[in-house]
Amino acid sequence: MMKAFISGFGTVGQGVLELIIMKGDVISKYGDLTVTGVMDSKSYDVNDKGICGLSVLGKKKNSGRCGDKDRNGMEGKDILDMADYDVLIECTPTNIEDGGEGLKNIKHALSKGKDVITVNKGPLALKFRELSDLAAKNGCIMRYEGSVGGAMPIINLCRESLVGQKIKSINGIFNGTCNFILSRMDSGMPFQQALKEAQQLGYAETDPTYDIKGIDSACKVAILANAVFGRNVTIKDVSIIGIDTITQEAIALAAENNMVIRLIGEVSETRLNVSPRLIPKGHPLSITGTLNTAVVETDFAGPVTVSGRGAGRSETASAILSDLIAVMKERK
Amino acid sequence: MMKAFISGFGTVGQGVLELIIMKGDVISKYGDLTVTGVMDSKSYDVNDKGICGLSVLGKKKNSGRCGDKDRNGMEGKDILDMADYDVLIECTPTNIEDGGEGLKNIKHALSKGKDVITVNKGPLALKFRELSDLAAKNGCIMRYEGSVGGAMPIINLCRESLVGQKIKSINGIFNGTCNFILSRMDSGMPFQQALKEAQQLGYAETDPTYDIKGIDSACKVAILANAVFGRNVTIKDVSIIGIDTITQEAIALAAENNMVIRLIGEVSETRLNVSPRLIPKGHPLSITGTLNTAVVETDFAGPVTVSGRGAGRSETASAILSDLIAVMKERK
Repeated sequence: MMKAFISGFGTVGQGVLELIIMKGDVISKYGDLTVTGVMDSKSYDVNDKGICGLSVLGKKKNSGRCGDKDRNGMEGKDILDMADYDVLIECTPTNIEDGGEGLKNIKHALSKGKDVITVNKGPLALKFRELSDLAAKNGCIMRYEGSVGGAMPIINLCRESLVGQKIKSINGIFNGTCNFILSRMDSGMPFQQALKEAQQLGYAETDPTYDIKGIDSACKVAILANAVFGRNVTIKDVSIIGIDTITQEAIALAAENNMVIRLIGEVSETRLNVSPRLIPKGHPLSITGTLNTAVVETDFAGPVTVSGRGAGRSETASAILSDLIAVMKERK
Repeated sequence: MMKAFISGFGTVGQGVLELIIMKGDVISKYGDLTVTGVMDSKSYDVNDKGICGLSVLGKKKNSGRCGDKDRNGMEGKDILDMADYDVLIECTPTNIEDGGEGLKNIKHALSKGKDVITVNKGPLALKFRELSDLAAKNGCIMRYEGSVGGAMPIINLCRESLVGQKIKSINGIFNGTCNFILSRMDSGMPFQQALKEAQQLGYAETDPTYDIKGIDSACKVAILANAVFGRNVTIKDVSIIGIDTITQEAIALAAENNMVIRLIGEVSETRLNVSPRLIPKGHPLSITGTLNTAVVETDFAGPVTVSGRGAGRSETASAILSDLIAVMKERK
């Protein structure tokens, strides 16, 4: 029996619980799974025999709170300590200043010998090495497929499908909002109008700074540098240029040469940057829309490209599900 | 200690042996590996303590024969029986009429309880169920990542990275030669000239029938139907239309509508076909050049796309290496 605690109960946390309920038959092939705790910023619910998933989801929808119990300013770790759990599924909002509560939750769980699955970019972009060392020291599994590219399985691709290959570089589109804006600009729309459309469609936040300034992409580049290349970097080491200065003239000039402009994150043993690049039409990185894409350059297998939806409730939850099944297989 | 036998010593067989030698340090992380036998159509070499890889490669290059011993009409299974091996790496040429020697070698190895890695499409497109049943009955592992799309890790993607997802359909470009020809036609080149260029560059065979008539793509579609969807089909069940009737006019008309024509293989629980399709520019399947690409449609993760080189000595050998490491991990 594996017991899971879900910390953070916004879109992704709710998506995970929904998927755990809907995929019960698939999960049961790998063992028994029970969710014994859940918390959001205001409330929590803990039950060692298993919380009632449907009732928690209904409560959240109706009242904005996942549980009847009030946090009353209690820290996440105090609530975690009330629960009996084997794996923490960390879904609190990304905080790239200091890692926020997500970082504290992950550190606490690992220090207690619990496995961790997270899609929270902040802790991984700021304290990757500290967390992976802590996991190793305590014999814990830490997985984070959904932290880079949502449903695009880039980390598992590098680790499993490309086993035996030396990975020379990864170049990718790691922010669907920017790619949507640039795709609209390909059709002649000015930047501000494309941004506004992205906001209306719910792709971009009201404050789109993190996306368009390339900071979100830089988080993912830092995570890949640590996870795939074994480097020890943080987001502060990434050289970043965003898309907010790209003009319609530049896009038109690119088009005349059968190229498009895309915001590309690049990571290798020596490189670590995010910047707009000219990409030939028909190239895997010339993709349009909100997809995320990564081209993994290997020593003998050549370039291998993977793409998928970089965000979304069920897409990100799906990445967590694949990590969860991997943990269940390994702990069996 | 794992002992491997390489049957078939053309481009792929030689590529595998080269890679096993060059990747010795990586492979050793998963255990000890020795190649104890190799055979081509005329000769063989068997040594229970391990053949000398470099000398076998040199011999093949200089004389066209991998071993000093003449087959004298001996069947593959008789030579396999002379060797001490745990895993057969089957690289004989594809025969889609009756499976050829590859099918006999695989059946023989499985019947003796040996694991099998193959990139030979014939046996898998004709007798998949029989072979997988035989493998299951005898407790053998059978892997075949390189049989579909070379270095494009489509099978491992579906089985590992997308674990937990229901795969609804796979649509893909499974023949790099056709995609090269269609990409050249995008630039206004007539079919016959594009085909000639593909032949000059070594992408297309002197007899390009299997490629341009869609038969090679159909083999891969049949393999995916069996491997990913658990169906029981052969290439004869695939509805096939090739690219040899596509006119420049059709391509120009597509271009006017911001589309390209690509040869798409489609497989799902109910569909099984290969045909030219209109694809919007910027779509993952609008890719140009010799790459293979597949869009995997899932229930919760949305569409996930993977692409890579569909052929080539080191690319196909890399797919075999990933299967070999997987077998070593499982047998450890």
